[in-house]
Amino acid sequence: MFRDRIRYAPLLDKITEAHEAASHIKDGTNLFISGFAAGYPKEVPKELARRAANGEEFKINIFAGASTGEELDGLLAKAGIVGMRRPYMGDRAMRKMINEGKIRFKDDHLSQLSQMVRAGDCGTVDMALVEAAAITEDGNIIPTLSVGNTPSYVQKADKIIIEMSGEDPPTMEGIHDIYVPEDPPYRMPIPIYRTSDRVGKPFIDLDPNRVVGVVFSKSSESYHHFSEPGEVPKSIAHRILDFVRHEIKKGRLPKGLPWQGGVGDVANAVLSQFADDDFFDEMDLYSEVLPDSVLDLIDRGKMRCASGSAVTFSKQARERFFERIDNYKRHMILRPVEISNNPEIIRRLGVMAINTALEVDIYGQVNSTHTLGSHLMNGIGGSGDFERNSALSFMVTPSTAKNGLISAVVPMVSHVDHSEHSVDIIVTENGLVDTRNLTPRQAAEAIIKNCAHPDYQDALWDYFHRAVTERGGHEPHILEEAFSFHTRFLEKGDMHL
Amino acid sequence: MFRDRIRYAPLLDKITEAHEAASHIKDGTNLFISGFAAGYPKEVPKELARRAANGEEFKINIFAGASTGEELDGLLAKAGIVGMRRPYMGDRAMRKMINEGKIRFKDDHLSQLSQMVRAGDCGTVDMALVEAAAITEDGNIIPTLSVGNTPSYVQKADKIIIEMSGEDPPTMEGIHDIYVPEDPPYRMPIPIYRTSDRVGKPFIDLDPNRVVGVVFSKSSESYHHFSEPGEVPKSIAHRILDFVRHEIKKGRLPKGLPWQGGVGDVANAVLSQFADDDFFDEMDLYSEVLPDSVLDLIDRGKMRCASGSAVTFSKQARERFFERIDNYKRHMILRPVEISNNPEIIRRLGVMAINTALEVDIYGQVNSTHTLGSHLMNGIGGSGDFERNSALSFMVTPSTAKNGLISAVVPMVSHVDHSEHSVDIIVTENGLVDTRNLTPRQAAEAIIKNCAHPDYQDALWDYFHRAVTERGGHEPHILEEAFSFHTRFLEKGDMHL
Ligand SMILES: CC(C)(COP(=O)(O)OP(=O)(O)OC[C@H]1O[C@@H](n2cnc3c(N)ncnc32)[C@H](O)[C@@H]1OP(=O)(O)O)[C@@H](O)C(=O)NCCC(=O)NCCS
Ligand SMILES: CC(C)(COP(=O)(O)OP(=O)(O)OC[C@H]1O[C@@H](n2cnc3c(N)ncnc32)[C@H](O)[C@@H]1OP(=O)(O)O)[C@@H](O)C(=O)NCCC(=O)NCCS
Repeated sequence: MFRDRIRYAPLLDKITEAHEAASHIKDGTNLFISGFAAGYPKEVPKELARRAANGEEFKINIFAGASTGEELDGLLAKAGIVGMRRPYMGDRAMRKMINEGKIRFKDDHLSQLSQMVRAGDCGTVDMALVEAAAITEDGNIIPTLSVGNTPSYVQKADKIIIEMSGEDPPTMEGIHDIYVPEDPPYRMPIPIYRTSDRVGKPFIDLDPNRVVGVVFSKSSESYHHFSEPGEVPKSIAHRILDFVRHEIKKGRLPKGLPWQGGVGDVANAVLSQFADDDFFDEMDLYSEVLPDSVLDLIDRGKMRCASGSAVTFSKQARERFFERIDNYKRHMILRPVEISNNPEIIRRLGVMAINTALEVDIYGQVNSTHTLGSHLMNGIGGSGDFERNSALSFMVTPSTAKNGLISAVVPMVSHVDHSEHSVDIIVTENGLVDTRNLTPRQAAEAIIKNCAHPDYQDALWDYFHRAVTERGGHEPHILEEAFSFHTRFLEKGDMHL
Repeated sequence: MFRDRIRYAPLLDKITEAHEAASHIKDGTNLFISGFAAGYPKEVPKELARRAANGEEFKINIFAGASTGEELDGLLAKAGIVGMRRPYMGDRAMRKMINEGKIRFKDDHLSQLSQMVRAGDCGTVDMALVEAAAITEDGNIIPTLSVGNTPSYVQKADKIIIEMSGEDPPTMEGIHDIYVPEDPPYRMPIPIYRTSDRVGKPFIDLDPNRVVGVVFSKSSESYHHFSEPGEVPKSIAHRILDFVRHEIKKGRLPKGLPWQGGVGDVANAVLSQFADDDFFDEMDLYSEVLPDSVLDLIDRGKMRCASGSAVTFSKQARERFFERIDNYKRHMILRPVEISNNPEIIRRLGVMAINTALEVDIYGQVNSTHTLGSHLMNGIGGSGDFERNSALSFMVTPSTAKNGLISAVVPMVSHVDHSEHSVDIIVTENGLVDTRNLTPRQAAEAIIKNCAHPDYQDALWDYFHRAVTERGGHEPHILEEAFSFHTRFLEKGDMHL
């Protein structure tokens, strides 16, 4: 069965065992892998971990599309062989080591890494390690359920290892649209004018001469966990839908702007709510990751096109996807992340972006990446690409975290990823504030009143009023107290007074 | 002479006095003016100030392109008749009132306001008040030395007042390139593929029926002050040129990427240095404002094209410009700010952006807008548009301010406009740090060592080392002490220990 997937004879000669292929990866190797939520290699990583367990001392630098599963980031982090990692990750074990300073992590805007790698800004591209569903008759790669930075990695790598997926059937061929832009200064527009435009090839160009091994993969990857949206995400989702419906009815927002939904429960909940909403019928999603709810929307005939760089499917969704693949393929496109997150396209199409914050402050500054100022959660991912270039940008968060012990609305966020200039609308389960015509002081009043949890409103009002009278300014702050919520939590594990 | 400039007879009938025209502006009027460093109206504002001085009570909301001169922002602020102002300003009197909460100021990314106004997101477009150099045979507007948001304001306004400039000769006709994009979701790419591409008309479309008055202007506007770059800006400029030269020689940066230079002495200094540098010969500037040095570069045959939304000329430069206008016109383009700052074009062309910070922190977060956390300086302007979408983004600042009493490198900036993710390279007169391959901890070590002023390095090292050991994390911070430099300055007027 595996051999059938390799439709280009010369690559049959390169079939090898994982340990053979992995022998090309040594201390100091810059390893450029496929993988963006899905579609990451599994066999070679296992082999690398085995070598480490056997006492070999080496470190590699891993460049991916975005996060991968425990079988890659978790395994290699625990094996102690990751020197550097970029541009985004979501694994607990790896996170811990990054925060301990044991793994060097660089947090890039996802849309930018491919171009930097092609320019040579990230060092030598020693090895690409990519998962494939099939090899075409001409020796090119059909990727699995993500694209990420793979096309540029394969274009630039000195050596290439291919892991043939044993899990995902090659029937998905045709879902990908692989377009690698020229590099500046001489390049033409990216010719995507509608979400559904296909502008590239259904495969990744490959130079078979650089392939040093083709490995068969018997492992399956960790599925995303899908839970029915709870009351908080649902309430946030309803507020967004009501707001957008209202703006469209008032004539201030055209119908038909594509949506983007970030990672996390709330973004999923918003998409789920569309399924039961009659107002939103002909939808486009110009996004980064495509969750389970996309399949519902396609089945109900509401989704014109869902474009992204990867899927984040649960086990059930993956099975359902492959069962009716011909149907879903007509409404889904997987693109390189340089294209899915491209400022040019996001601005042109007028995307409405919804991303999740860890905390927001009374003036609308947003923290998506660091808890209590210092500790990395996952990374900025594509949230910057979308928030800053969209036609309308939403930032959502439950009003509290850790069972209410943490207020997600604070006097000043302890880290800023998205400034007030790039965030239009803030939403919690308590309310929605459109800051587009508000000064910082007006935004503060609205955010405290509408978004903050009632438990924390008094303390926020107190801070704000004293900041205005004692310090003044366009965005009044009492710098000595700006982090009082955070330091209180650090001291007694609770932000309540 | 004035009447010659109006080549469309029906508008001759609308010639009127400033006080007549101004009578259309009332309490609550949303006033959309031309003006972006240059090219703002002067007569009607004078008249409005006169009415206020005579005891009339009214407030207007002013939307401009960006900053204007004292004869507009300063005058109207002092007259107490400005309710709201956006998207950027630079006037001392107005700044003071904004910081006192007496004028509501909204700080927008410059590239975004036109689209928002067209969509109706900023309220009714009651009145456009625009300066013109001439009216064409078909009744369209030739603007003066800025374009800003004027085309969209004129497109949407219920009523229009035109101030015919008595200062700038209409020989500049042909320098402008007016292209107003379609609105999302259905629009095609903006067809600019090289800095020098012209894609629009040399005039602003006007519906003469909406013109309620044409006023002759006898006033001239405040010229920009030009001073020879001092040692600090020069040193910063040299570091940037050396770095770029080195990257080009190493093959990591293609030759021919266009430059952008922000406002302030340092950006000017960089452009000045090009004139005497043999390496940089065929230059393009895809920028927002065009300073004096552009004329030198054109005269020396080094500038292929300087594209911006406005000029910031000194008196001498303005005279020189008009003396040899036919020559300069061939190498200069003035565009709407929605185009000069457009993410699509900035990303496509691969602009190298240089903008000025008030302060940077050890992890590379940047503050461009608020001193000591609270007090607005000017606004974010176009710095976000460029820093976040450029191929290479520089942030520059002298290492100290206020004669050394303020360190421009601090443990944590007191306001964030540009996050570490969007800023590649930090430069002070002491050194340059390329953060593109550095983790936050590595960036901190390099920035303290190379960018901070020697006077402040010990205190920064102390903070950083204790943050690492006492708190840890990916970006270690001691939140109680993060603003200790600022609070020290607030207490004793000096950041030194
Ligand atoms: C911000 C982000 C982490 C939220 O994701 P989520 O799944 O909704 O997160 P949760 O609410 O489960 O919170 C994650 C953890 O942070 C904690 N947390 C949440 N808010 C917190 C806060 N203000 N302070 C401290 N901890 C907080 C939660 O308690 C939880 O801790 P746990 O793992 O110990 O249970 C996630 O959206 C993200 O990584 N965003 C950045 C990248 C991005 O937006 N990509 C999309 C672009 S297309
Ligand atoms: C940041 C910015 C204000 C610097 O401009 P500049 O002319 O070089 O500024 P200066 O160095 O003269 O500083 C301006 C004032 O701020 C003060 N200042 C500078 N750094 C400071 C700091 N870290 N803390 C407090 N005050 C500071 C200066 O002392 C000076 O005060 P003064 O007016 O009382 O003399 C200016 O570039 C700006 O407005 N940038 C944002 C918009 C932008 O980048 N637009 C370009 C996009 S194309």
